Amino acid sequence: MKKLINSPENVLADALAGVAAAHPDVRVDFTNRIIYRATPKADGKVALISGGGSGHEPLHGGFVGPGMLDAACAGEVFTSPTPDQMQEATKVVDRGAGVLHIVKNYTGDVMNFEMAGELAAAESGVEVATIVTDDDVAVQDSTWTAGRRGVGVTVLLEKIVGAAAEEGRDLAAVHALATKVNESGRSMGMALTSCTVPAAGKPTFDLPDDQMEIGIGIHGEPGRHRVPLAPASEIAQQLVEPILADLDFTGSPAIVMLNGMGASPLIELYLMYGEVAKLLEKAGVKIARNLVGNYITSLDMAGCSVTVLKADDEILKLWDAPVNTAGLRWGA
Amino acid sequence: MKKLINSPENVLADALAGVAAAHPDVRVDFTNRIIYRATPKADGKVALISGGGSGHEPLHGGFVGPGMLDAACAGEVFTSPTPDQMQEATKVVDRGAGVLHIVKNYTGDVMNFEMAGELAAAESGVEVATIVTDDDVAVQDSTWTAGRRGVGVTVLLEKIVGAAAEEGRDLAAVHALATKVNESGRSMGMALTSCTVPAAGKPTFDLPDDQMEIGIGIHGEPGRHRVPLAPASEIAQQLVEPILADLDFTGSPAIVMLNGMGASPLIELYLMYGEVAKLLEKAGVKIARNLVGNYITSLDMAGCSVTVLKADDEILKLWDAPVNTAGLRWGA
Repeated sequence: MKKLINSPENVLADALAGVAAAHPDVRVDFTNRIIYRATPKADGKVALISGGGSGHEPLHGGFVGPGMLDAACAGEVFTSPTPDQMQEATKVVDRGAGVLHIVKNYTGDVMNFEMAGELAAAESGVEVATIVTDDDVAVQDSTWTAGRRGVGVTVLLEKIVGAAAEEGRDLAAVHALATKVNESGRSMGMALTSCTVPAAGKPTFDLPDDQMEIGIGIHGEPGRHRVPLAPASEIAQQLVEPILADLDFTGSPAIVMLNGMGASPLIELYLMYGEVAKLLEKAGVKIARNLVGNYITSLDMAGCSVTVLKADDEILKLWDAPVNTAGLRWGA
Repeated sequence: MKKLINSPENVLADALAGVAAAHPDVRVDFTNRIIYRATPKADGKVALISGGGSGHEPLHGGFVGPGMLDAACAGEVFTSPTPDQMQEATKVVDRGAGVLHIVKNYTGDVMNFEMAGELAAAESGVEVATIVTDDDVAVQDSTWTAGRRGVGVTVLLEKIVGAAAEEGRDLAAVHALATKVNESGRSMGMALTSCTVPAAGKPTFDLPDDQMEIGIGIHGEPGRHRVPLAPASEIAQQLVEPILADLDFTGSPAIVMLNGMGASPLIELYLMYGEVAKLLEKAGVKIARNLVGNYITSLDMAGCSVTVLKADDEILKLWDAPVNTAGLRWGA
C-alpha cells in the first residue's frame, strides 16, 4: 500500500489537522470530529449538516461554509460517524430555526442520523428534518444499502439547498426543496481500479488489467457488471444510458457533474465530460450548468461518475448563488 | 494501461473538446490548440500567456480567465507546444500593451517561446517579455533542462502577476514582478508511483512497491534519490528541508502550496499539508496563505509537491485579488 499517511489508524485525525491548518474559516472539533463554520450563520436561519465515512473528500468537510453546509461529521474511512457526533454537530449549528440532516443512503449513516435526530430533539429541543439521498441508478439494493445508494446528487443538493437556507426559508421549505432535488437527480459510476482502505492495506477488490466495473459504488461495492476496457465514448454511453432510462431529462435545463473517483487525472475527466455532454445533447438534454472534477471520491480509485439533475429556474438561481467553501467556490 | 480515453493519439483533442463544452467563458481554438478568454481584457492592459505539454491540468488551460492568464497553449502530453501556437496566442491576446510569456524551464518550452516571441515582435509588432520559472530545488540540471525545472511557483506566479496585469501595470512592471515572484519561490516534489504517458502505454519508470522517488520531476524525470517508503511526517521533512536550505523564508509572510501529482486523493493531501505546515512553523516560517489540491499534476502519478513563496504586502494583496478560472476562483 503506497499512501501519504503516517499510519492507518491516524489517517482521519492527521487529515483533520491539515484541514484545520489550511482553512481558518472553518473550525475543527477534534474530539467529535466535526468541521463547522468559524462564523455561524445568522439566528433564525435553518442550518444544514451532513457527514459520513471519510475517503470521499472534498465531500463533506470541504463543503462547509457560506452557501453550503454549516457542519460536517467525519467518520473513519468508509465508516459512518456516530450518533454522538451528529447530535453534537446539530447542537452546534442550530440557530433556532431547525437543522436539516443530509444523509447518503447507507445503512449505518441512515440509522445513526436517525438516532442523532431523535436525541437532538429530545435533549436539546432542536427541530430536525432529514433528507436521504438515493440517486445511484446502478443497483437497487447493495452491500451497504436497502434501496439505491446516495452519491453525486448529494453534492448538488448541498449546494442548492444550502443557498435556500441562506435565503432564510423555513425548515419545511428547505426539506421540501431537498426532496425535490433528490427526486430530480440520477447518477451512475464506474471504476478502472479498486481503492485501498488504509486499515485494510490491500485493494478492496480485484479488477483485472483488461476489465472495468460499471455501476461501482463509492466504497468499491459491486456495480452492475464487469466488462472489458472500452474507449471513453463507450464508457460514457454505459453511464449515460441507465440515467436517461430512469428519468426523463428533456424539457428542463440540466445540471451535469462529471466526477472523478480520486485517482483519475483532470485531463481524463474533461475528456469524459466531452463525451457525456455529446450524448446528453443528442438525447435532447439541455445542459445549463456543469461541474468537472473530484467532488465525491473513493480514496485512490481511478474512474468517474456522471450525475444529471433536472433543474428549473428556481434551482438554477440557487445553484448560481454565492458559495464559499474549500471544495466549491464562486460569487464570493 | 487503464485510462479514460478514446485512443492515445486523440487525448489532447478530445480533452480540449471537453474543456470547450464545460467552460463557456473560455474559447478553444482547436486548430492552434489555444484556450483563451471569451471576453478579452480591456485595451491597454498587458496580457499573459503560458503553455507547455499537456498532462499537468489544471495548469495551464484551467488558469485562463479574469485575474490570471489570457491564453494557454496546449502541447501534446509532456511535449512543448510549437512556436506557431505561441505566436498565434500572443497575437490573439495582445491589447496593445504587450504580452508576458510565462515559461516553465524545460528546453523545448524555452526554445519555442523564444522563437514565438521573436516572430510575434517581427511580424505583428507585439512587445513580448518572458519569465522563465525555475523553482525546483531538487536537481540543478535534468533530463529536460539546463538549470532548475519550473514547477509549482508557476501556478502562484500566474495568479499574482495576473492580478497585477488586471490593475493596468505596464509590461516592464509586470515583468519585474514576475521576476521577483520566481526568485522568491522554491519547490520540491516526490512520487509514490510513476505516471503513464498515453502514447507510451506503460509507466515512464519503475518504482518498487516499497520505494518512493524524492525530488521527482513533473514528467517523471529522476529526482534526487530513491528511498524506502516512509511516514508522511518524514516525507514532509524530505520536501521541506531542501526548500528551507535554499532560501531564507523567515521574516516574511509565506504562501504555501501542497500540490497533488494527480492520483493522490485529497484526504492524503490535507494530511501532508498538516505535516508540512507544522515543520514550516517550527522553522519560523509564517504561513499567510495556502493552497491544497491538484494544481500542477503529472498525469496519474501518485505523490505531491511543496511550494513555498516568500511574500510581502504587495504580493498578498495581489494573491487576494479576485480570480475567476476553472482551476482557481475566489472573490468573483
